[in-house]
This record gives sequence, structure tokens and C-alpha cells, in this order.
Amino acid sequence: MRKKAVVLLSGGMDSATALAIAKAQGFDCYALSFRYGQRHAVELECADQVAKAQCVVEHRTVTIDLGMFGGSALTDLNIAVPHELSKPDEIPVTYVPARNTVFLSYALAWAEVLSSFDVFIGVNALDYSGYPDCRPEFIAAYEKMANLATKAAVHGGRKLTVHTPLIHLTKAQIIKKGLELGVDYGVTSSCYDPAPDGAACGTCDSCRLRLKGFKEAGGADPRRYKPC
Amino acid sequence: MRKKAVVLLSGGMDSATALAIAKAQGFDCYALSFRYGQRHAVELECADQVAKAQCVVEHRTVTIDLGMFGGSALTDLNIAVPHELSKPDEIPVTYVPARNTVFLSYALAWAEVLSSFDVFIGVNALDYSGYPDCRPEFIAAYEKMANLATKAAVHGGRKLTVHTPLIHLTKAQIIKKGLELGVDYGVTSSCYDPAPDGAACGTCDSCRLRLKGFKEAGGADPRRYKPC
Repeated sequence: MRKKAVVLLSGGMDSATALAIAKAQGFDCYALSFRYGQRHAVELECADQVAKAQCVVEHRTVTIDLGMFGGSALTDLNIAVPHELSKPDEIPVTYVPARNTVFLSYALAWAEVLSSFDVFIGVNALDYSGYPDCRPEFIAAYEKMANLATKAAVHGGRKLTVHTPLIHLTKAQIIKKGLELGVDYGVTSSCYDPAPDGAACGTCDSCRLRLKGFKEAGGADPRRYKPC
Repeated sequence: MRKKAVVLLSGGMDSATALAIAKAQGFDCYALSFRYGQRHAVELECADQVAKAQCVVEHRTVTIDLGMFGGSALTDLNIAVPHELSKPDEIPVTYVPARNTVFLSYALAWAEVLSSFDVFIGVNALDYSGYPDCRPEFIAAYEKMANLATKAAVHGGRKLTVHTPLIHLTKAQIIKKGLELGVDYGVTSSCYDPAPDGAACGTCDSCRLRLKGFKEAGGADPRRYKPC
């Protein structure tokens, strides 16, 4: 029997690459996306396209209400998305409280129902935006907790692994890896503040990191950007 | 300024008691409930009544879709709620995959937005139903993870505490404690399979534990039960 993996899929570059890596490692992939009060639906349309392009076994999108708590420029319309570079030692206003904790918890629930012991998340500790829940120590603590949370934990069964194949890669290395594996980055969206037609802004933190990555990887970003 | 606590409130006996303890410790309480695909709404009506009776600052009910994953008699209509006692070494079919992990993750998100560093959950490791995510080692691992997940974690700020005031109490001790603090158990519901009018079945695991608790505590359960 082939191994099953639950892969968190945001519609961005990183999770599309993490999915391709999970597939290349021989997993049957179950992709999980979230409608969590994002300001725009572009990301989720991209997640659908990525899931189809990479032939996942199943793709589910869960509607969750992180927006009700506010506190982030990504979910609270009263907080503007900044278009200048964030300061190195500051957690930007685009941070969504406990987002990865919540996402991983749903992944854990689905994995348990599927009898899967492998969860993939495309977090990245190098070229990242300073989010606390993208750090290796957070992931390690999450994995430890998850292995005490489930039936398998009590029955001394198989251990769950939270795979973070991108965690020590630069954006350029992620892009090179993805291109090797045939990822179509044209159907991924990284922008925090896209135009209504889906074009990326090119100036938010996330677009800057992405464009820098493609530049360093020596390729052109196939994503459509707003005209200057 | 008074301290704020996020208190998970299910509408059952234990969380009502945990809330009363949080209040007695001087916290301003923010109660959090979940519509998670339960078979019945009785629990949530009780949560509303408990929140009102105990004068919480705010009570939010988040709709989440744990039922979509199936795998539990509490959320999957194809699995029957058992009415005989569960075996001591077996996790019963009423276990909901990763439920407390998901609930605590939302509590963590809300706590971060509220600048609260205290979360209360009424889990119980003695007279419990054998759920893995009610054990002290799970809670300890969760707290450790939570303290790596948030802004405060990165900024070396205050530590978050997951309070489990009932974890080492018997059901009888919980009831005695609650009665001392003035909890009205008539507005709490513990039944996994209540009648449409809210009457408890008296025979599921949860009703059996509750009735045994009241018997040992030497009081009558004010909750309405189905006639035999």
C-alpha cells in the first residue's frame, strides 16, 4: 500500500513545491487548504489549480474563521497591507495569530482519519517574513505535541512526522528544486494584496521575496504582475 | 488592569466548573465554544446559558468543520453512539480526531489577539473516557508548543499557561468544587446522545460518569434525564 501524506496547500510557491517534493518521495497526497478570512480569493483559486496540476488524490478546502479574531492585515480589513520592506527584527502586521498552529491541527485531524502519519508544510526559516510559527523549534514542538494527541500516540503506534522540506532553503533554492520537479509557478500566487484580476502587486513583503528568489535562481517569474 | 483568560466552554459540567475556577482566580473570562459538527445543538445552548449565568466578558462560538473528516460517533451520523460502558483499554468511538488540539489552537489565536496569557480547559485525566488529548503529557506538550508559536514567544515576552484545574480531580470532586463556587449544573449537558428536547440519555459513557460523580458527591443531578 502506498503511503499517504496530508499536504498543506496555500496556493503559494512554497506549498506547491512542498507538494511536488512529497509526490517525488512516493506519497499519495491529500491537499488541505483553508478559507480563513483572507482578503482575497486569488490564493484559493491557485491552490485548486496547483492541486489539479499535481494530481493529488483529494483536495479539501476548509472554511475557518480566523478573521473573527482580527489582529492581522491579512484578515482584518481595518489594517492595511504594507508595501514597504518590513524591518528585520519586527514581526510584520501580515502575521496571522496562531495560523500555522490551527492549520497543522486540521492536518493532524485529517491524517488521523486517513491513517496517515506524514504531514507536509512548506514553511521556510531563511527567506521568511519573521513569523514565529515558521521556525524549526516551533515545528519540532508541534510534532512532539501531535505525537501525544492521537489514538496512535496512546496505542504506541507509528509516529507522525511533520515534514518541512523547505525549511532550510533560500527562495532561490526552493524555485530551482520546484522547477526540477516540474512545478508550474505561473499558477501559484504569493501576493498579500493582489489586484481583483489576480495580478500580483510586486511590492508587498511576499512579492519582494518571490521576485528576489527568481532573480537569484536565474529565471523569470511566470506570474502576472500589475503594470507599474 | 485585570487579567484576561480564554476559557474553552463546551456546555458540559467540566468546562462550566473550569470557568467558575478561572473567575474565582480573578480572571476576566472570554468563553470560546465550537459548533464542530456535533450531532445535536443541546450542548451549545447549554454553553450559552453557562456563559450568561457566569457573566463572562464575551462568549464566541466558532463554527468549524471537524465533521467533514468523519471518524467519530460524535460527528459522523453513520457511527452509532454506544450505550454500554466502554472497555477500559480502548479509546471509544466518541473520540473526535485532534479535537482538543484544534480547540486549543483557536483559543491560542484569540488569546494572542486579546493579549491574554491564560487559557483554561476542563480536561480531566481520572474519570475520563480514555481520550489521548485529555492527558497531562499532552497538555504540557501543547503549552510548550504554544510558547514557540506566537509573537510573545519570539519577543521573549510573557509565557502562556494552559490551565487544567480539573485534571487530577474525580468527577465527584469536580462537582463539589463547582457547587462551592455556585455553578448551576442544571444548565450543563454532558450527554453524547440527548433527546430532541435536550433530556440526557443516562446510558452513554458521559452520562454514566456524570451520574456516578453526583452519587459519590452525595447530591442529585439537576439535569433532566429521559424517562426509563
